[in-house]
Amino acid sequence: MAILPEPVQNLALALERLPGIGPKTAARLTFYLLRAPNEVAQQLAEALLALKSGTTLCENCFNITRAGQSLCDICSNPERDDGVICVVEEPLDALAIERTAAFRGHYHVLHGVLSPIEGIGPEDLKIRSLIERVKRGKVREVILATNPSLEGDATALYLRQQLLPLGVRVTRLARGLPMGGDLEYADQSTLLRALAGRQDMD
Amino acid sequence: MAILPEPVQNLALALERLPGIGPKTAARLTFYLLRAPNEVAQQLAEALLALKSGTTLCENCFNITRAGQSLCDICSNPERDDGVICVVEEPLDALAIERTAAFRGHYHVLHGVLSPIEGIGPEDLKIRSLIERVKRGKVREVILATNPSLEGDATALYLRQQLLPLGVRVTRLARGLPMGGDLEYADQSTLLRALAGRQDMD
Repeated sequence: MAILPEPVQNLALALERLPGIGPKTAARLTFYLLRAPNEVAQQLAEALLALKSGTTLCENCFNITRAGQSLCDICSNPERDDGVICVVEEPLDALAIERTAAFRGHYHVLHGVLSPIEGIGPEDLKIRSLIERVKRGKVREVILATNPSLEGDATALYLRQQLLPLGVRVTRLARGLPMGGDLEYADQSTLLRALAGRQDMD
Repeated sequence: MAILPEPVQNLALALERLPGIGPKTAARLTFYLLRAPNEVAQQLAEALLALKSGTTLCENCFNITRAGQSLCDICSNPERDDGVICVVEEPLDALAIERTAAFRGHYHVLHGVLSPIEGIGPEDLKIRSLIERVKRGKVREVILATNPSLEGDATALYLRQQLLPLGVRVTRLARGLPMGGDLEYADQSTLLRALAGRQDMD
């Protein structure tokens, strides 16, 4: 497109590479930034550059933490219960659970799921370190909070198999109808799970 | 959120400031960038920094062009018809018209619309320069391609009033049903316009 100068095209293309951002959104964002005060693009650029240099992975749970810290704020917080480990696929999942403010234990971030199709095996995930954490003996319960997907379930099954022999309690997040959801619109497998997992109203 | 280190929070907040990006999308993009190779965030940052320094406005039509150029590729292209000027609100609108490949004239970018509520008057837009371009005498037709909105219409009416006395033809983009649209779902005012502007099928 002759009408777009190179710097505009470059930014639009760089934005398009992000997930969920198509050509139209990329163009809209680019032209928004063109019109916005200089600081908007500047601050975004600085935040991008600081992202990797300013962060690292916690040596214990592999969640994201500030560069220079060996342990994240949760792992180094004596008020958190290190007897319960919630295993998640990604840091964003731990964040979602933190937002419920209902979990006071520790996390363990796998950084992926088992996926034979994509060639991702146990050694590609932070599984060995999880088993070592459990072997250290303090852990009473491991909550498997992988996604309710085919790969998430397979990963949970694999972990269960590895963890049960260590004498630890292994649990999985409940399945059923989402809150505020509509029974009419629930998919078949969610309904099946909700039926199978029905609970007594005592 | 104690769980998120500062660099992660900063980027999420900077992304949230962009239009159409909410907290969830901002978090998703941030964690995508954390996992992606360093170059992805780097290239995006560089494109952002080059955006303003690498671009300027064309002195004739006020479209975006490369820094250092006084005229944009369209204004300096002898094959484009400088007898027809298409007036648009924003550079993105000119881009949309370019994509049709049906317009071979020049553009004029107003950089906004008249909006008494927001205190934007004719002197805040590139209107004087448009009138000067028309006064220079070569222009046969001015196509008003402001948005089909209240402000766009008001701006078009104002420009018509300024331009007609100069002896130039002033036209406006047609209104009616969008292609591929469904009559059933067309809003009342679009249908009214489509009815009023109905054309003979000769």
